[in-house]
Amino acid sequence: MSSIALLQLDPTVGDLVHNAHRLEGLVALAVENGAEVAVSTELAVCGYPPRDLLLEHDFVQRSIQAALNIASPVPLLVGTPVPAEDSRSLPTNGVVRCGPEFSGRTGNQQGRIVAEKQLLPTYDVFDEARYFAAKNRSGLARSFGSLNLGVTVCEDAWQSAGLTPSAYAQDPIEHLAEWCRQGVAINATVNLSASPFHTEKFTTRLHVARHAASVLGHPFLLANQVGGNDDLLFDGRSLVAWPDGRAIVAPSWREGVLLVDLRGPEHCVWLDSTETDALCIGPSEVLVLSADETGQGQLDALDELTDAVVTGLADYCRKSNISSIVLGLSGGIDSAVAACVAAAAIGAANVTGLSMPSRHSSQHSMDDAEHTAKALGMGYEVHAIDAMHRSVEATMTEVLENGHPVAGENLQARLRALLVMGYANARSSMAISTGNKSEIAQGYCTLYGDMAGGYAPLGDVYKMDVYAMAERFNQRAVEAGQTPPVSSSTLTKPPSAELAPDQVDEDSLPPYEVLDAVLQAHIEGGMNADEMVAQGFDEALVMDVLTRLERNEHKRWQMAPAPRVSSRAFGQGWRRPLASRHDWRGAA
Amino acid sequence: MSSIALLQLDPTVGDLVHNAHRLEGLVALAVENGAEVAVSTELAVCGYPPRDLLLEHDFVQRSIQAALNIASPVPLLVGTPVPAEDSRSLPTNGVVRCGPEFSGRTGNQQGRIVAEKQLLPTYDVFDEARYFAAKNRSGLARSFGSLNLGVTVCEDAWQSAGLTPSAYAQDPIEHLAEWCRQGVAINATVNLSASPFHTEKFTTRLHVARHAASVLGHPFLLANQVGGNDDLLFDGRSLVAWPDGRAIVAPSWREGVLLVDLRGPEHCVWLDSTETDALCIGPSEVLVLSADETGQGQLDALDELTDAVVTGLADYCRKSNISSIVLGLSGGIDSAVAACVAAAAIGAANVTGLSMPSRHSSQHSMDDAEHTAKALGMGYEVHAIDAMHRSVEATMTEVLENGHPVAGENLQARLRALLVMGYANARSSMAISTGNKSEIAQGYCTLYGDMAGGYAPLGDVYKMDVYAMAERFNQRAVEAGQTPPVSSSTLTKPPSAELAPDQVDEDSLPPYEVLDAVLQAHIEGGMNADEMVAQGFDEALVMDVLTRLERNEHKRWQMAPAPRVSSRAFGQGWRRPLASRHDWRGAA
Repeated sequence: MSSIALLQLDPTVGDLVHNAHRLEGLVALAVENGAEVAVSTELAVCGYPPRDLLLEHDFVQRSIQAALNIASPVPLLVGTPVPAEDSRSLPTNGVVRCGPEFSGRTGNQQGRIVAEKQLLPTYDVFDEARYFAAKNRSGLARSFGSLNLGVTVCEDAWQSAGLTPSAYAQDPIEHLAEWCRQGVAINATVNLSASPFHTEKFTTRLHVARHAASVLGHPFLLANQVGGNDDLLFDGRSLVAWPDGRAIVAPSWREGVLLVDLRGPEHCVWLDSTETDALCIGPSEVLVLSADETGQGQLDALDELTDAVVTGLADYCRKSNISSIVLGLSGGIDSAVAACVAAAAIGAANVTGLSMPSRHSSQHSMDDAEHTAKALGMGYEVHAIDAMHRSVEATMTEVLENGHPVAGENLQARLRALLVMGYANARSSMAISTGNKSEIAQGYCTLYGDMAGGYAPLGDVYKMDVYAMAERFNQRAVEAGQTPPVSSSTLTKPPSAELAPDQVDEDSLPPYEVLDAVLQAHIEGGMNADEMVAQGFDEALVMDVLTRLERNEHKRWQMAPAPRVSSRAFGQGWRRPLASRHDWRGAA
Repeated sequence: MSSIALLQLDPTVGDLVHNAHRLEGLVALAVENGAEVAVSTELAVCGYPPRDLLLEHDFVQRSIQAALNIASPVPLLVGTPVPAEDSRSLPTNGVVRCGPEFSGRTGNQQGRIVAEKQLLPTYDVFDEARYFAAKNRSGLARSFGSLNLGVTVCEDAWQSAGLTPSAYAQDPIEHLAEWCRQGVAINATVNLSASPFHTEKFTTRLHVARHAASVLGHPFLLANQVGGNDDLLFDGRSLVAWPDGRAIVAPSWREGVLLVDLRGPEHCVWLDSTETDALCIGPSEVLVLSADETGQGQLDALDELTDAVVTGLADYCRKSNISSIVLGLSGGIDSAVAACVAAAAIGAANVTGLSMPSRHSSQHSMDDAEHTAKALGMGYEVHAIDAMHRSVEATMTEVLENGHPVAGENLQARLRALLVMGYANARSSMAISTGNKSEIAQGYCTLYGDMAGGYAPLGDVYKMDVYAMAERFNQRAVEAGQTPPVSSSTLTKPPSAELAPDQVDEDSLPPYEVLDAVLQAHIEGGMNADEMVAQGFDEALVMDVLTRLERNEHKRWQMAPAPRVSSRAFGQGWRRPLASRHDWRGAA
């Protein structure tokens, strides 16, 4: 029986040469292990999402050339933008055929296009109607090795399962199924995907694949991009579903090849990429699922979240040529977990934590910060800010006099940013900001202070999940025979910004369990104030939280990229409503 | 002859009650002056662009209700989102009928929809395929007063003139023309627009209107939104074109009513809004154009740019409830012009400039800063940063030792941000950042230093245009019998960041005339390196500029909103390519 390699690639957006080279490496690995044919992810040669690079005609031309020039000893399908034939049409999101029969031949570009995406998602993080024209012909790779393969691209498979926010007029899966009913021999259908991650997304993707296999009556193979590109994460987990509901799922957060034997899951294997810088976070086991399993029992949501956040930072650093990280280490939960993430992403030896006590810092905070740094084995420096704090206050006496007290408190956060950024600039390191989604949502953070940094690893993680991640990092350390990096004091003391005497977060915010519940109902659940109150939330609490959420939009405008792990993240560029919008909820 | 009022509205995105109220005010003004019917701008009741507010079902429902509830003594067309009838379809971008015949009647919502947008722009700053479903039926308001009006929405008119980046399958103007040829009596066609500003955009819009009038064989009336919503500006300039090419154009940057008599331009009048807080920047004269005039002779590009930038800041402040502004005043050209803009936007009495000399500041810089502040009549304070600079250097000795020298230079910029932001936080003022597009493009600016601020009025203005604006502000002062605010020293001395001894910008950057030419060819002209070299630009220069442009993408990610005045602005959210993308131009 022939085997099909699903190439789970971690591309860098725009780096055509590098991506093509990595694809060739994965093909070679697959062929060594007996692959007969291979299939890449969506837009593999240019990486997903290329965004406005697609508006440059040059870029589209060079992408397809790079795709067509890929040398492969076996038939290979590669995702690439395909330029339009006339100048007033958009390109398509296509799939071209490579392989030994094309080596050295340059002509007949058109004849090598086997599929073009039919359903263009234009919602959530997607904006494909901006960049692509939709086609309405289903893809087929005939005599592809010994196989005939149906060929679809990502969203093409989602309409059939009814899982898109609005309905499309056509259904590519139903179309291929109709061809099968008409007697066209199709052995399997492949789907080239760049399906982004958020928690619980996998269950949905698995459902889509099973539904497609069931409608088509043959195996459905989905090759999914892996890794991070700025704020977007892709979990990989390429998978195969059979019509009877069995499925096999590749690991998440690892680059490599899922070698698929169409006979069944037990004949499939996972091959880790052999590139030295390949993404490899978390376990490498495949997941074999019987028809009634959804992976819920086998997958751990907290491991998934933790590894997702680490992947985001690791890939951002690798793709931006960043080899060291600096952060403020306060002794609080956020900076402790951010340090764990940084150490896991690029190695503790490449991470430095700065303890920067002010007159309001407690001794236990400094002890807790030092504990985390020592336990992780990262660099640690103490720079008291008291002297410069007093000097700045002296210069600013007049400015601050009779002003809002928060102006004085912010000074400490901004002086720490001065130190962290100074360190980063002096040592060519990247500062990371350590804030979590709950506090950013409420504006409980200082612009150009603790918000400073090139990347915000916890920027899409709710506070209570930061606590859970801390426990998981501790557990992992214990399992590895190391000291747990987050001290029990950090885990149990009341959260405090320590910008004023005896200050605790609960002076300004609801308890985080309560705050997170309100934020999640509104942001992830899409509920408005009335709906939340009807669900039992306190009305004053809800209005309070929503008011702060809207009043602080201007801070999020200037927020660093944060890896998207929730179903609705901040900072996804212009999809955010305007900072100057009126609060229409109050206007009824 | 009947008269049609084009309501040139300055809506606040999301503020349904306020926008409806303002519309009613404009209708009342129009009726007092003899209007028989009235027409609003696109999505007038919710404001343009509502962005992801449109994904909230509640918001769409409340918008159409607010539109239908508008009380009008004459027939009125109002732009509003129209909810879909089934839950898996998107809303449409529609137009509903209001007027005396509907007062007190709530039912039959469907019967009041007279048009729905057919062409949905999804390029540049537009993303309408994300939010709306397209319709393919042309709009008609029959027996609208004594008239039958064709009804189109913004982009609907642009396909006919061939001025969209890619072609649409349908052409609403041609469709209406076909109805006319079939004998449908249409007196005029109206177009409800929210057509954003950039320099030279007006000529294009005028061409679209004349082309439509010519194809239709009757007058074409375009009501355009005016004002700023965050980074988007709308210039108003509602207009009428007759089939013979004559045209009348309303003022830019003013809210009001263009009262149109279909007999010809000489019978039309402009009425300024009577609201006390209405936008009114620049002259209130209408522009009457004969068939061979394009407005080029009558309009001044520099006045247009200057008023656009002032409008952006003025409207941002009004819509965000910001009543005072603080900025660093260095004596350089950028901060001098930013101060002029702020004074023009919210009144000099509400603006404070801080002079914050360091040991590298020259006496002439402080004198120049003081000159600008005095001439404008704004607040002015001097806070030397030397003491705190030395204190910070003492604390950071170890951090900066043997590090990159730019880390030390950045300290001064960040200490100034500390002062400006401290002032803003203490006094509930908004800090503005004063950088221009040329330096931001090159990363010649300090993150959390001079980039700090809630709004960047010059962020889309090239350096040479900042000089031109300075001359224009000086000229305006002279004409008003005041002291020119930008000193000749500021205008003529070599630009310098003054962060190191004898530093000038040309140590690090090409002369600004040269830099601006390269940046404009690439950013506005869309030329790649090869094309620029073929045009005669020096290759090393081009590669140098483009490399810096790409390497500094991460700074622009965290940039404050800047009013869009060029054909391609930064900071338009996620349309920017990824910060971690590879430089594909080098990969050929």
